Amino acid sequence: MYDLIILGGGPAGYNAAERAAHSGLKTLVCEERALGGVCLNEGCIPTKTLLYSAKILDYANHGDKYGVTVEGAKLDHAKVVDRKNKVVKTLVSGIGAKMKGAGVTVKNGTATILGKSADGFDVECAGEKLTAKRLLICTGSEAVVPPIPGLREAVTTGLAVTNREVLDIRTLPKQVVVIGGGVIGLEMASYFNSVGCKVSVIEMMNKIAGPTDGEISKILQNNYAKRGVEFVLGAKVVKVTDNGGKGTVEYEKDGKTVGVPCDLILVSTGRRARTQGIGLEKVGVAMNRGAVVTDECGRTSVPGIWAAGDVNGKIMLAHTAYREGEVAVSDMLGKKDRVDYRSIPSVIYTNPEVGTVGETVDSAKALGLDVEEHTISLRYSGRYIAENEGGDGIVKIIVDKKHKTILGVHMIGSYASEIIYGAAMMVAREMRAQDVQKIVFPHPSVCEVIREEMFSIK
Amino acid sequence: MYDLIILGGGPAGYNAAERAAHSGLKTLVCEERALGGVCLNEGCIPTKTLLYSAKILDYANHGDKYGVTVEGAKLDHAKVVDRKNKVVKTLVSGIGAKMKGAGVTVKNGTATILGKSADGFDVECAGEKLTAKRLLICTGSEAVVPPIPGLREAVTTGLAVTNREVLDIRTLPKQVVVIGGGVIGLEMASYFNSVGCKVSVIEMMNKIAGPTDGEISKILQNNYAKRGVEFVLGAKVVKVTDNGGKGTVEYEKDGKTVGVPCDLILVSTGRRARTQGIGLEKVGVAMNRGAVVTDECGRTSVPGIWAAGDVNGKIMLAHTAYREGEVAVSDMLGKKDRVDYRSIPSVIYTNPEVGTVGETVDSAKALGLDVEEHTISLRYSGRYIAENEGGDGIVKIIVDKKHKTILGVHMIGSYASEIIYGAAMMVAREMRAQDVQKIVFPHPSVCEVIREEMFSIK
Repeated sequence: MYDLIILGGGPAGYNAAERAAHSGLKTLVCEERALGGVCLNEGCIPTKTLLYSAKILDYANHGDKYGVTVEGAKLDHAKVVDRKNKVVKTLVSGIGAKMKGAGVTVKNGTATILGKSADGFDVECAGEKLTAKRLLICTGSEAVVPPIPGLREAVTTGLAVTNREVLDIRTLPKQVVVIGGGVIGLEMASYFNSVGCKVSVIEMMNKIAGPTDGEISKILQNNYAKRGVEFVLGAKVVKVTDNGGKGTVEYEKDGKTVGVPCDLILVSTGRRARTQGIGLEKVGVAMNRGAVVTDECGRTSVPGIWAAGDVNGKIMLAHTAYREGEVAVSDMLGKKDRVDYRSIPSVIYTNPEVGTVGETVDSAKALGLDVEEHTISLRYSGRYIAENEGGDGIVKIIVDKKHKTILGVHMIGSYASEIIYGAAMMVAREMRAQDVQKIVFPHPSVCEVIREEMFSIK
Repeated sequence: MYDLIILGGGPAGYNAAERAAHSGLKTLVCEERALGGVCLNEGCIPTKTLLYSAKILDYANHGDKYGVTVEGAKLDHAKVVDRKNKVVKTLVSGIGAKMKGAGVTVKNGTATILGKSADGFDVECAGEKLTAKRLLICTGSEAVVPPIPGLREAVTTGLAVTNREVLDIRTLPKQVVVIGGGVIGLEMASYFNSVGCKVSVIEMMNKIAGPTDGEISKILQNNYAKRGVEFVLGAKVVKVTDNGGKGTVEYEKDGKTVGVPCDLILVSTGRRARTQGIGLEKVGVAMNRGAVVTDECGRTSVPGIWAAGDVNGKIMLAHTAYREGEVAVSDMLGKKDRVDYRSIPSVIYTNPEVGTVGETVDSAKALGLDVEEHTISLRYSGRYIAENEGGDGIVKIIVDKKHKTILGVHMIGSYASEIIYGAAMMVAREMRAQDVQKIVFPHPSVCEVIREEMFSIK
């Protein structure tokens, strides 16, 4: 008999488990694959390991602008993948140790809800029947493989891969077609471009990077276009052909059909909540478009059952999952807490990096907010100029017109990934431009451009 | 007739000038050298330009751990210095354009206060007599060359250099002795170490990095010791000998005298306020140990005269100067404002970087504060592990025991320079550990370790 059974040991699940156990709840986590979930095993961490190696290669290849020259810079992709596996292994075992340290029981197996019982909820995992007063659904998400003729077959042969398989290929392709210009597609396009593959990104929308501010998306696209990545926007992939490892991706654009030859296809067209086969229907958890419906405290429609992470279909990011897991545990314990969805940052680990939080002008307008947009070049930063020959990074700040409260910060440029959390703090704490003016930022830094920009908000 | 004459066009002066002019004050800046002051011309920016090139070289030389190999990585020091000059020139002219855009008059010349007149204060600059209602003293600081026998002579011949001259040497030395293991000494030691010079750092105290937290100083020292930098702590330099470009630095330690051969000596033993020869005595501005006495609004003892930046001898950092200049202007305009000296961040741009803000355990104890110290390894961050083979970075958080209000954050590791501003915000806004728990940090990032640490504060 557990106080809490968590279905899924990804970011939402393992983090919630730790917090719950520290708060005295007898907690069990069921995980069918490895602890850490998609994020750690086939997402955030593996890609960052690859991208860091690519960055070192980029530095070596482009150091002459900074007075550094090398000969014969080489990236050994198989070695990079081995190192990625080592990093993942270290971190997975770190989570295992964390669970052990917190007193969380971990079971390896697929958990299925059997139903409600007198004591709470019955769950089956690895042939065992388990009972808990509460459940937390953290089954995550999976890549969508759209119904494009020939694509499923290409996935079977290995010509086409999703975020999972792409991280384990040991030989670099010559020409990659990335279907879908969102975060995952762009990060992998960046890697393949750095290591010398020909890369085409085919995107259905007229811009890359999903809901990212349009100007920032455009700067990112220009940076990669200059480095040789081909972008085909507003195009629909209609057919994939596999001729024994050599393939063709056909897309339609402006009424014409064009074929792009390739030896690898990355499918990165979105993800969907994993809610099948876990018995949600047995207890009647309400769903919407295949995702578990939750409120801002993580409650599902069934008292005693919470859900957190990608499975709720809201913001599919590991750090959102962490926070949702924490809030769900707070709610179980009767502590007042909620997820502030307005202030969740988001990063694209390309080079330049993109970091964003809060409203864009478009999203603010859609909400009927009266806002101002202020844009400043990162070239206001001495450090940025010292470190970025020809850099074209910017920061955008969105404030409400009346009180100059910071509603959004969007930047593209070096260190954006590590700077944006401070902006998330500004949005979450409803700081005004004049509040940020009073904070001293270190000099020289890229982040100080954010402060400088506050002085143009009057 | 000006509303405001600013003596010195460094960070305090040019920033105050821009804010003052935007607020409608007729403003003049007198600068005897180049706009931007020490920071831009012979401090922060030039060193960061050099260090960035060194970082690229380090990446190339140590990329094999990440699967990247190169042959014959070379840094062309003269080219790096040329690039540094280009970066500085770009930024200096940027400040010139900023002054012009704001309507600030800039005069090139040494400004001297002549005295108080009926209209305000009279100042002489470049042979011209000028009058203003108010003065802002921003004359900065200069390197101290301590009275060590032989050192002044070595400065004359060029064997010994300060922060100014070291940035313009065009041929790399073989063996450098750095006298003084503070920020400037360490950053240059880092550069010389990266580019292959033998480096010895001689420091009078028993630790490097001045008031930096002791454990962090030690980690930094260990990192550089591993890379071959020699540290001689608790040692007093007693003599410098120059034998035509080849020199010896003799120090005393534990009663023994040891000589270190070298072909370059960097003197980085501290800086002092520049207050001589500018006529402060004519108007009776109160001084303390050679620095202008100011309150937290930048007021001097003489109504109508403010001072900002290094000249007040408080915290000699460019970003402190910016803020002090702004506050002085606010005060002139009757706006309530003050410098919050408790929350000023500070960075050492070594590799790993050090970023600190607020109280250390030692400084808190000296103030009689009842505090707790919480330390966490950066290896809690997946990104840190992905990017730092064998990294030993940490974050320390100091909170007051009763309310868990964040009083200090101290870190060593990648991106510390761009992360620490958020911690400055936490200190300035008197946030508690539980407040930071509610902020969502992006994953994967190094900064998220700060958030993780908040959960160990109960």
